[in-house]
Amino acid sequence: MPQISHKGEQMPASPIRKLTPFADRAKQQGKKVFHLNIGQPDIETPQGMLDAIHNSTFKVWAYTPSEGTLSYRQKLTEYYNKLGYNITPQNIIVTTGGSEAITIAMMTCLNPGDEVIIPEPFYANYNGFACQSDIVVKPILSYIDNGFALPEISEFEKVITDKTKAIIICNPNNPTGYLYSKEEMEALKALCLKYDLYLFSDEAYREFCYDGREFISPMHLNGLDENVLVMDTVSKRYSACGARLGCLITKNEAVIATGLKFAQARLSAGMLEQIAGEAAVDTPDSYFEAVNKEYTHRRDVLVNALNNMEGVYCPNPGGAFYVVAKFPIDNADKFCQWMLEEFSHNNQTVMMAPATGFYSSPGAGSNEVRMAYVLNSDDLQAAMICLEEALRIYPGRV
Amino acid sequence: MPQISHKGEQMPASPIRKLTPFADRAKQQGKKVFHLNIGQPDIETPQGMLDAIHNSTFKVWAYTPSEGTLSYRQKLTEYYNKLGYNITPQNIIVTTGGSEAITIAMMTCLNPGDEVIIPEPFYANYNGFACQSDIVVKPILSYIDNGFALPEISEFEKVITDKTKAIIICNPNNPTGYLYSKEEMEALKALCLKYDLYLFSDEAYREFCYDGREFISPMHLNGLDENVLVMDTVSKRYSACGARLGCLITKNEAVIATGLKFAQARLSAGMLEQIAGEAAVDTPDSYFEAVNKEYTHRRDVLVNALNNMEGVYCPNPGGAFYVVAKFPIDNADKFCQWMLEEFSHNNQTVMMAPATGFYSSPGAGSNEVRMAYVLNSDDLQAAMICLEEALRIYPGRV
Repeated sequence: MPQISHKGEQMPASPIRKLTPFADRAKQQGKKVFHLNIGQPDIETPQGMLDAIHNSTFKVWAYTPSEGTLSYRQKLTEYYNKLGYNITPQNIIVTTGGSEAITIAMMTCLNPGDEVIIPEPFYANYNGFACQSDIVVKPILSYIDNGFALPEISEFEKVITDKTKAIIICNPNNPTGYLYSKEEMEALKALCLKYDLYLFSDEAYREFCYDGREFISPMHLNGLDENVLVMDTVSKRYSACGARLGCLITKNEAVIATGLKFAQARLSAGMLEQIAGEAAVDTPDSYFEAVNKEYTHRRDVLVNALNNMEGVYCPNPGGAFYVVAKFPIDNADKFCQWMLEEFSHNNQTVMMAPATGFYSSPGAGSNEVRMAYVLNSDDLQAAMICLEEALRIYPGRV
Repeated sequence: MPQISHKGEQMPASPIRKLTPFADRAKQQGKKVFHLNIGQPDIETPQGMLDAIHNSTFKVWAYTPSEGTLSYRQKLTEYYNKLGYNITPQNIIVTTGGSEAITIAMMTCLNPGDEVIIPEPFYANYNGFACQSDIVVKPILSYIDNGFALPEISEFEKVITDKTKAIIICNPNNPTGYLYSKEEMEALKALCLKYDLYLFSDEAYREFCYDGREFISPMHLNGLDENVLVMDTVSKRYSACGARLGCLITKNEAVIATGLKFAQARLSAGMLEQIAGEAAVDTPDSYFEAVNKEYTHRRDVLVNALNNMEGVYCPNPGGAFYVVAKFPIDNADKFCQWMLEEFSHNNQTVMMAPATGFYSSPGAGSNEVRMAYVLNSDDLQAAMICLEEALRIYPGRV
């Protein structure tokens, strides 16, 4: 029988899905499970996107150009230039989700054995994508006590070697919700220029900034054009995760030309999604205002409830729809599994993602848990009542 | 300015698209260009698929499970079991096009530096996917004189080393249209068992077998379950190339478990496409009968016209919708470019894919050209008139 590849063996399983069998069993036992483990919003997709699908009139579901249709790239350009990115359609490669934007960015810019620095906790699938390309992730710790702010630049410099080729930031951050400040972005710019590094900016949650805070992209910084790659997706912006539509943006022409070769090998992104994505750009501001109001409310419900629990600490994040909270527990993996396997309160329980899956440093995050506030506030409140009771009686409480 | 990766530099550009700038210029000059270069059928997508899109009622365009929805995998199982594959939904991972099925298969089964044997000419993007995973393609020549039949097994054995992990076949073949016989498949089976090799079977063109010929998949062969991976797509079957929906099928449980880790990293395939794909399985037989009748007619038009041209030879292929023909020319790349740049007949010309892009051995296929018969027979006939005239006056005729 032929062997599995080493890469296949080393490839990490998804940390947000590894407890799924326990959740399934809990449901079979008749328990109601509140899913705070995964970033699948319950928010409705804008009607304009759905209308574009329903009203499509094509007869042949055809390939599009590998870089994406000109028409969609023009519409995206309109969207990004309203944000001040100052790009043209030639700066965009349309991708199959943000995931493919990340894999193309990695394959285009890094050699096997090259290193990418990522502040941790970070989006767990970066590990998988790095593994696919034999790229080495060098994590540097951010800390819950200052809300997961950008680590000191000196911490980056400590791990920079001649193999270091890029830094990845996710802003606003998944899993912490932290929104990087102008000063932090300027510091990253200086670092990238000093060491000639790419800055990969994952902006999946760009629309979700709260309390009037300003979103700063590296695309807003002067003099960094050759270094910046933005990896974007419609998944969260329009609650269209299942559309698998994203893009890679850079003003670095060599990166676009090379990235296009990877895009050509897989022929094209989805045709129908690009039609829907074009319509999505005309989503009225009122949609985002309503969504942001809802998420702000949910965040407040969640963060207040958490901080009112004895021994729990949760920073109040400025963006995205995640929090990472610290619990008075021995081990987050054990606790999250126990909540599904052993615990119920009024026949209800909560599924959460142990934060350990978002750290690469061994042992880090072992008393932290990520929660996505993708449920309505009534359900969130019920989930918090469950959680408080669970923390009260959990045998591994410390 | 940071560097591009070596992989990015080595990544081959798409051979079917590299003449596109010349075609664009020809069109700007007012020439009509018949596109025989790319496998984008003009056939209409089945109405049932389009209806499924138009009638979809979801409000949240959500992720699906990484392996694909159970409902779609059940429907696919129905489809494959009618063909005698004898599988369950657990043998399927739904992918973003056939392309992703190929990349997941490669990453799951081969290590960097491992070798895959592919009879050439072969689907050019295998080179790109191999490059992405640092896999080495070992081509072995098939020959136009016997219609591109499977090379002798001894030719495979000559290139087998301890790095050889897999063989890829595309059946019916792109670019040659050759349909492998039962005897050829049995010979491959014996070879794979003898050397413990995976057999990757790209079956994108399964539905397109002509003249009553029988399609044989390695899934039909007993005792090869652990070795076979089928890489499939709805692109050609339902003329839905832009749907980017495919799947990976294997009865090897370790391959499914490992492939799923790669699938989890990119979260899911398209949700809407799986809805459409489910409807597609109910496409009436009459659709395929009409399509196959049309393609058989086009093939006959094309192959007859070619073989009536002086100095041209084109085998009569048993499947797919491609032919590779031999022309009395010095160099296929030069000829195809010349047809776009210099030539016109009644203000018309033809875009074709030089076969060199489908060979990996240097110099091979330099007087061969691939044509896709994806135009109606009137256009095909007009294109053949153009081509005959072009071959008559081409300065590099030999």
